[in-house]
Amino acid sequence: MREEARQLDTPSVVLDTLGDWKKTHDCNTLGLDHVGRDVIVMGWVQRRRDHGGLIFVDLRDREGITQVVFDPQADALSHERAHALRSEFVIAVRGTVRRRPEGMTNPKLKTGEIEVLVHELRILNVAKTPPFHIEDDTEASESIRLKYRYLDLRRPLMQRNLLLRHRAAFLTRNYFAEHAFVEVETPVLTKSTPEGARDYLVPSRVNPGKFYALPQSPQIFKQLLMVAGFERYMQIVKCFRDEDLRADRQPEFTQLDLEMSFVGEQDVFTLIEGWIVRLFRELLGVDLPTPFPRMSYAEAMSRYGTDRPDTRFGLELVDLTEIVKDCDFRVFRQALENGGLVKSICLPGGSRLSRKDLDELIEYVQGFGAKGMAWIKVQPEGWQSPITKFLSEEVRRAMAEATGAAPGDILFFVADQPRVVHESLGNLRNRLARQMNLVDSHTFQFCWVTHFPLLEWDPDEKRYVAVHHPFTAPLEEDLPLLDEAPEKVRSRAYDLVLNGTEIGGGSIRIHRRDIQNKMFNALGIGPQEAEEKFGFLLDALQYGAPPHGGIAFGFDRLMMIMSGASSIRDVIAFPKTQKGTCLMSGAPSEADIQQLLELCIRVETEGR
Amino acid sequence: MREEARQLDTPSVVLDTLGDWKKTHDCNTLGLDHVGRDVIVMGWVQRRRDHGGLIFVDLRDREGITQVVFDPQADALSHERAHALRSEFVIAVRGTVRRRPEGMTNPKLKTGEIEVLVHELRILNVAKTPPFHIEDDTEASESIRLKYRYLDLRRPLMQRNLLLRHRAAFLTRNYFAEHAFVEVETPVLTKSTPEGARDYLVPSRVNPGKFYALPQSPQIFKQLLMVAGFERYMQIVKCFRDEDLRADRQPEFTQLDLEMSFVGEQDVFTLIEGWIVRLFRELLGVDLPTPFPRMSYAEAMSRYGTDRPDTRFGLELVDLTEIVKDCDFRVFRQALENGGLVKSICLPGGSRLSRKDLDELIEYVQGFGAKGMAWIKVQPEGWQSPITKFLSEEVRRAMAEATGAAPGDILFFVADQPRVVHESLGNLRNRLARQMNLVDSHTFQFCWVTHFPLLEWDPDEKRYVAVHHPFTAPLEEDLPLLDEAPEKVRSRAYDLVLNGTEIGGGSIRIHRRDIQNKMFNALGIGPQEAEEKFGFLLDALQYGAPPHGGIAFGFDRLMMIMSGASSIRDVIAFPKTQKGTCLMSGAPSEADIQQLLELCIRVETEGR
Repeated sequence: MREEARQLDTPSVVLDTLGDWKKTHDCNTLGLDHVGRDVIVMGWVQRRRDHGGLIFVDLRDREGITQVVFDPQADALSHERAHALRSEFVIAVRGTVRRRPEGMTNPKLKTGEIEVLVHELRILNVAKTPPFHIEDDTEASESIRLKYRYLDLRRPLMQRNLLLRHRAAFLTRNYFAEHAFVEVETPVLTKSTPEGARDYLVPSRVNPGKFYALPQSPQIFKQLLMVAGFERYMQIVKCFRDEDLRADRQPEFTQLDLEMSFVGEQDVFTLIEGWIVRLFRELLGVDLPTPFPRMSYAEAMSRYGTDRPDTRFGLELVDLTEIVKDCDFRVFRQALENGGLVKSICLPGGSRLSRKDLDELIEYVQGFGAKGMAWIKVQPEGWQSPITKFLSEEVRRAMAEATGAAPGDILFFVADQPRVVHESLGNLRNRLARQMNLVDSHTFQFCWVTHFPLLEWDPDEKRYVAVHHPFTAPLEEDLPLLDEAPEKVRSRAYDLVLNGTEIGGGSIRIHRRDIQNKMFNALGIGPQEAEEKFGFLLDALQYGAPPHGGIAFGFDRLMMIMSGASSIRDVIAFPKTQKGTCLMSGAPSEADIQQLLELCIRVETEGR
Repeated sequence: MREEARQLDTPSVVLDTLGDWKKTHDCNTLGLDHVGRDVIVMGWVQRRRDHGGLIFVDLRDREGITQVVFDPQADALSHERAHALRSEFVIAVRGTVRRRPEGMTNPKLKTGEIEVLVHELRILNVAKTPPFHIEDDTEASESIRLKYRYLDLRRPLMQRNLLLRHRAAFLTRNYFAEHAFVEVETPVLTKSTPEGARDYLVPSRVNPGKFYALPQSPQIFKQLLMVAGFERYMQIVKCFRDEDLRADRQPEFTQLDLEMSFVGEQDVFTLIEGWIVRLFRELLGVDLPTPFPRMSYAEAMSRYGTDRPDTRFGLELVDLTEIVKDCDFRVFRQALENGGLVKSICLPGGSRLSRKDLDELIEYVQGFGAKGMAWIKVQPEGWQSPITKFLSEEVRRAMAEATGAAPGDILFFVADQPRVVHESLGNLRNRLARQMNLVDSHTFQFCWVTHFPLLEWDPDEKRYVAVHHPFTAPLEEDLPLLDEAPEKVRSRAYDLVLNGTEIGGGSIRIHRRDIQNKMFNALGIGPQEAEEKFGFLLDALQYGAPPHGGIAFGFDRLMMIMSGASSIRDVIAFPKTQKGTCLMSGAPSEADIQQLLELCIRVETEGR
């Protein structure tokens, strides 16, 4: 072996080849049961310590750490060579497992009662000093971590995250296979999605001037698979959206996508709850109660001001419109006269907030369009507020009753158009809960939100657009409204919300051509435009489409929540920055002019 | 239910909603055990027959077919409505399972002993007459099938193919998870691959003038995962190559990709053999013997004229160079003088080939560059051939012995440069085997081909290029040749060949920076160019890369072989044509001018 070794640039270290050695154990399995055994372990040098004429190395692999000891009396050559070992060198050792001496055990380590006395060392590779130490607590900036991602991924925390993700995907496939789902791969080079977000385009060389689009979701394909009679489809699949990236978005993301035939909402809910329960039990040891609570969109907006309610805490919105409609406070009255609402949040114990705290909160809700926010401190000695004087005793009593306000609490009020009231108070509610430490970060509160509006008015396009997508079925009983009051039609769409984050969404789809036509009509999409944009789906609906529905989950987001990571980048092996770049590979990069010529495209960045 | 139904364009059929019905059984499970039970089945009308006042419908779902019977005495309304049923209508029925009358059973059908007497019918959707009948034997052209893919996929054959594919992927993930592999997703938006095939490019809007590339394989990422210490990575992953499409290629294809640390070739072979054995046993009921035979590249070329030998039949190439080197036949002598070879194939029983047959075969090998092909018919009465006269008795005896030629056989000879000899006779061998029916199409013969050349001379680029890829490790013992005779260096690359088709290929990689430098040097890639193209991989090799190797399999091709399909399009749900188009969706298509502006690119097809 040694003869074949070659000099590295670092002249002092002679490298060995692996030869016919095989790992007998990983670095997390050896214990007192193995004492006396001859073993081969391999991995990375986490740390070397010289002590009392011996050299100790913490050897790290994917599974854990094992201490190996070089003793000149066991093997003089290995001991001599071990002096050269540095952090992140790759080595293999053959040796004997022995009990650590009294007082030298490490109860924090699974292998902490033993060590491996080395009889032979093979140095498989050297390593430069890494730009940051490989351990969970790193002070390295995220850009350094992303640039040296292959080192960042060595950190046990990152390995655990990706292992959790692997196990989650594996469990997911098992669960759905048990429920008769078939995983079918849908195309990545596909057609532009009308009515969606911005597509990534891929120029076609063989069809000059034409472009593929990367899929925003396999929506149409999965519906076609239902028309094709697959009945139960699932896929863990990459999707793409060319949107301006926020902190928690990636240009490519992974979706658990599924679709079922001959089902209604309840079938989807039951199936998904079974999946989530399994994931949380097997990966986190958490038992979740089922069924998950359900709430209509209207109820969610009314009680929480959002369609993604965080139900881990109270602070619900209370509608005071009826109570204050005749009061003297001009701000309230004007809002109501303009068709608005007055809603309140009662924060228990909030009366100790300072004037500065309140000013900050007012500024915060103004960020959501509220013109202002009134407040009342409920003190033992009476109500304290600039607006108390406008409220009669009767109104105050009714308010106290409706909000449950008790001495020591504070009431916040926003009076405005419903949209502004809900956005302001919905966000304020979340902020107050965090600020006052009302959120139990160890609980997982799921909630189905149902009956979303089918359509909303788009003031830019001056037409109705689909809230979910144009294939979402309207509620049967609301169908007659589609012509006369489209904004009132409720849909058969649903979201699954976890701790205030939407983790999945779907719907029962339109399976009838006549209803799909009505839907396009409501969207202001004429027959010809519908034909151009959705022709093949419309055709498919004519050849025996079964009733069907489905759902899709943002897998990255779910993994982020389950692993406790603070960014989806920490559950993705090779993520991109917010500018969509890969700091390691340098993607995207300039293209070869020859290739652009072949693709018949030219770059025109002038004037930018 | 009926009240809510709405008129379709087809005025005579009133549609029902699914309501709260659920399938109690699929269409392949009911049998005599279920007689008397109340069931709900749903699916598509395969066929309707009116007979003796009853209406019979073969109801089809993903799993199979069940006969349902409409009898006016059981439910007059259902019977009346059933008259409207046509092929591919979607229906649900509630009814009672009963034994079919004597003489009416269908032993070919799993449910052929029973039928469901209908008590209630729900017509869920209508269907236009499909452009082809939904059955395995279709005469529809492939372009019609691709255009109406959602109907084509209803054919039981296509459903079986995609189900086989699903089960294969599922088994694959199970197998590798059992062997401690972690599935890690690698990026789809990545950087251009130097030294590879042509990339698909994706313009970046956020980084104007820059492009992502779709991955040709996750090669570099999987090596980085080894550097990152994952030890065992696998992924079933989409890859992309913008090549001119042949009949059996797709612009996007699926790969089983894997990589392992601390291993040599034998570890990869053993692992893969276990996987293949499991797939074939569990999906096809075929038991494969292991280990699979192994053969060096040199041996494969010598015996079969190809590195993808079909070992289901003999007809091996026999080297006659030594035997004929002094004979009088000018063609042989000239070839040898130019450094060529003379090789032969003996076709048993081939002497009955006609002159016309022989002319066709000669023309065939000329297509591979052979200037001609000599032949000798070994007849009981003596050798019959235009070249017999040039061959001495001694040469003939030696030839007969070397080739094993017996009366009734024919010998074919090609004398040329080794490349031409091997390509001609290698292809001739495959053709003869098919023509003479020597191939047992029910056997699966696997074979590992090893020790591929590391480099080959590229006459266009006037430099050596990597046969496999630039990260493939040279054989340790051939390392000294890397400077002096690069073309002689053998690599640690290997392919797995099944019935003459390469289904997988991989290698042990270079894990040492110094050897990677030598490799780039041999490829004529200078330090600066290497840094530009592969900088991050080269960096990674300096921070403690373990010895590692891996392999990748063309999953579509493997599925094609396992399902017995004649095209990979038959194992892909939504494939593209040879022009890279999707006949169903119309992808690729023209892009919106606004979007091109945002991407800072312009289409220039003028002059084409």
